[in-house]
Amino acid sequence: MVMTRRSFLEGLAAIGGTSLLMTGMEAFGMDLASAATAPPPLAGGGAGRSVIILGAGVAGLTSAYELGKAGYDVTVIEARGFAGGRSQTARKGFQLTELGGETQTCTFDEGLYINHGPWRIPFHQRSTLHYIKEFGVDVELFNNDNENSYAFFTKGSGPLANRPVRKREIASDARGHAAEILAKTVQSGALDQQFTAADRDLFLAYLKSEGYLEGADHRYGGSESRGWIVKPGAGLVAGEPTKPYAFTDVLHSEAWRVLASVSEWDQQRTMFQPKGGMAMLPAGFVRHVGDKIRYATVVEKIRQNDKGVSVSVVDAKGQRSVVKGDWCICTIPLSVLKMIDHGLSPAHKTAMEGVAYAPVGKIGLQMKQRFWEEKHWIYGGHVYTDDPDIGSISLPSTGWLGQKGVLLGYYNFIGSAAKVSALSPADRAKFAVDFGQKIFPEYAESFESAFSVAWHRVQYNLGGWAVWNEAARARDYPVLLRPDRRIYLAGEHLSHLGGWQAGGIESAWMQIDALHKQASAS
Amino acid sequence: MVMTRRSFLEGLAAIGGTSLLMTGMEAFGMDLASAATAPPPLAGGGAGRSVIILGAGVAGLTSAYELGKAGYDVTVIEARGFAGGRSQTARKGFQLTELGGETQTCTFDEGLYINHGPWRIPFHQRSTLHYIKEFGVDVELFNNDNENSYAFFTKGSGPLANRPVRKREIASDARGHAAEILAKTVQSGALDQQFTAADRDLFLAYLKSEGYLEGADHRYGGSESRGWIVKPGAGLVAGEPTKPYAFTDVLHSEAWRVLASVSEWDQQRTMFQPKGGMAMLPAGFVRHVGDKIRYATVVEKIRQNDKGVSVSVVDAKGQRSVVKGDWCICTIPLSVLKMIDHGLSPAHKTAMEGVAYAPVGKIGLQMKQRFWEEKHWIYGGHVYTDDPDIGSISLPSTGWLGQKGVLLGYYNFIGSAAKVSALSPADRAKFAVDFGQKIFPEYAESFESAFSVAWHRVQYNLGGWAVWNEAARARDYPVLLRPDRRIYLAGEHLSHLGGWQAGGIESAWMQIDALHKQASAS
Repeated sequence: MVMTRRSFLEGLAAIGGTSLLMTGMEAFGMDLASAATAPPPLAGGGAGRSVIILGAGVAGLTSAYELGKAGYDVTVIEARGFAGGRSQTARKGFQLTELGGETQTCTFDEGLYINHGPWRIPFHQRSTLHYIKEFGVDVELFNNDNENSYAFFTKGSGPLANRPVRKREIASDARGHAAEILAKTVQSGALDQQFTAADRDLFLAYLKSEGYLEGADHRYGGSESRGWIVKPGAGLVAGEPTKPYAFTDVLHSEAWRVLASVSEWDQQRTMFQPKGGMAMLPAGFVRHVGDKIRYATVVEKIRQNDKGVSVSVVDAKGQRSVVKGDWCICTIPLSVLKMIDHGLSPAHKTAMEGVAYAPVGKIGLQMKQRFWEEKHWIYGGHVYTDDPDIGSISLPSTGWLGQKGVLLGYYNFIGSAAKVSALSPADRAKFAVDFGQKIFPEYAESFESAFSVAWHRVQYNLGGWAVWNEAARARDYPVLLRPDRRIYLAGEHLSHLGGWQAGGIESAWMQIDALHKQASAS
Repeated sequence: MVMTRRSFLEGLAAIGGTSLLMTGMEAFGMDLASAATAPPPLAGGGAGRSVIILGAGVAGLTSAYELGKAGYDVTVIEARGFAGGRSQTARKGFQLTELGGETQTCTFDEGLYINHGPWRIPFHQRSTLHYIKEFGVDVELFNNDNENSYAFFTKGSGPLANRPVRKREIASDARGHAAEILAKTVQSGALDQQFTAADRDLFLAYLKSEGYLEGADHRYGGSESRGWIVKPGAGLVAGEPTKPYAFTDVLHSEAWRVLASVSEWDQQRTMFQPKGGMAMLPAGFVRHVGDKIRYATVVEKIRQNDKGVSVSVVDAKGQRSVVKGDWCICTIPLSVLKMIDHGLSPAHKTAMEGVAYAPVGKIGLQMKQRFWEEKHWIYGGHVYTDDPDIGSISLPSTGWLGQKGVLLGYYNFIGSAAKVSALSPADRAKFAVDFGQKIFPEYAESFESAFSVAWHRVQYNLGGWAVWNEAARARDYPVLLRPDRRIYLAGEHLSHLGGWQAGGIESAWMQIDALHKQASAS
């Protein structure tokens, strides 16, 4: 999806002077797909061996579930009062206190929610879908590309800038005008040296087909697909199609930035979401390993020797204790781990400094009317903007045709996330609502309540996801993949699927396989 | 959607010599969208007046529901044993006997079904969505455009013909190569007379962005979006992107016919379907007007005088009776009506001859494995083919990640529908399975049972939908919109939304409004 990646990368450039600046397109661009499709077979089992798992996010839960199935005695230490890590769903009563911030309590109506962490499961992330299926989590389609949604670009110029424009109009006109120009060039013979006659004729046919070109002169005059002034209906209402925008206006609007020859891999159709929120996925794990989790228990110190690992923890009542096991899987985000007395090797300690964690902000806005459906005929999908403080506004892919809904009011990164997150929750909501009002006239009057998160200010995360620059990926990342004696690190940060649940799951699969091999050999 | 319209129009040309040949692109191409969004207010009500409604399809049901709400005394005469007209869902036990054919009894597993009539509700068909909402029918997204699905084109040439090719590869390569050619042309200065310098720079930026072009020479070298040889994953699995196909191979494959600058209007995202099948929509009406419907009652004769309308009917036991009312809404398809002793004016009778009804065939195939999901990662959407006897193969947008599923094995029109429908149900299934096997190696071994329909052979329809050519649309269609004294015709055939439920609903809205005005004035 154009806006996500681009605004992220623009943000990297804009924020200059931090370690984030070193993160490059190479690292982010590749973090896209899922390689492994099933957990490793843990031959021979793990009976008689114990594993301490630090963190009950999807990586920790995956480790606990698979190692537990293989007969290992597992204990999961989780700092929060609930499992799931970042795979959270905010609904009525859900509380969040950011570092240095006031406590937010979600006041959405019953049944409404926002996935303020991960919210999408691409069709190709087989590892995540494996557990969706394993636990019978009901999924529904996430509408990730809505041709009827708006682009709202403020930095362009001309009559199409700074106002909502339908994506279908931009797609039809940009591609149609371009196809006309190219077809006329082909027809003029200017490209005859590049083509055989057969190729040239097929190329013209392709351009005509793709661009809705008409006549022998291959003219783009709009298309019924770009929309209607009067829509066809019953009786004599045959409909009146719209006219195309001038190409120069389309170009100067910059709204063509929403187009791509094919959607980016990690944003391609089809996309899923669990019915009822992303928290339904960790809930599936918890049904199986919930009794192994020690909640509200914070890791203070990690030590190991030739015999095993001991983890000093403190619980919600301030009671300190030491958990002992033969092995350890540590899924604590590196942003947090590096501030713990982890006792890992100097090489691991140094390597951890190579990673950056992305500031990321999201806000859910409860609206008393689904005006985007009723008035604008936009059912799900994203309104793309070129304002990095907003990023995109996303309409919910659930509760179709209902009364109320929760939309995502902004999704910002890096410098924008840092800036917006400095606001109070109430001011974040005001900022989001004021912006949305520019696109939807019904926005402000429909707004009822908000719930926002700034992941870089969330105590046990300190960032949305790990970001590796090219140098650190080559130098530091491989170090962290290797165990430090009896301790294995796992999580999305140790994958090429940064920021995706699949990264956490597949990293866990890799590390439990390695642990099992080491344990079986010892 | 390219294949639907095009194969339909190709079919029109191919079948030559029938009245269908006269149907033109103008008529079909415009039959796309929904003009009216709410039923007409029937001011003053209809108390003390009676209306006979012929047909309990969506047009008849809409008429009965709205007139009934306004106080009219309505009676619906329905030839079938159930309501819904073509809005049918075949599930276990559903029976169909085509004219001259054997009786098919659907043997799908519990919970599985095929919508062998209408199956999609576009976001812009407000009239259909009006009743979805009115009756609280649960809807889910219909995945109408899946970038990971296949194109399977047999008539092209070269290495990409006659084998399944991912749509995302074709989209990336066709548009990428075209963008490169165009960018190089722009860069060469060949188009400088057409552009200002600012336009030219923006045009290059657009082409680069749209086509994933790289470097100062705007080279298309593939994109990670077109797919991966090795997918990124955990640890050191950074992924290995695929390479683009040669442009000449893409052109000669003809698979680019699946591309359009923007999807055709009536096929655009977002699309819905009722959970549990399209029959849930008529079921919503039936909850309100079910007691007004006389099922299994066939119209034999229609007469009217200055006082009212009388309809002679015969029920399933052969009992004849006459239903009397002040007015009549007749929603019987014209293909059927013209064979009834309808007593309509000579002008109406002549005008009815101007319409053709489209032969249309569909087949549902129950598969014991959802191999398209498990093995091919295709969740819903359509496999496009250039074989008109198959049309497209459509994967179900429900039952995600389950065990079994029912897919649509063909969707054919006109000559192809006539040809395939001449086969026995078993031979139709064999034909569909043999073809599908060319695309999916798991097809034949997974096949369990089939249910097919040929709408032109269905007694009370005699065609999938009405098709007007330009001449008949101008000459005959307006005649049929006008009432013949106390009798109003309604249905998708009297709309510019041919073949869509919205056409039936909006036509009913138009005609009950006219009837009400006439009745109120009398």
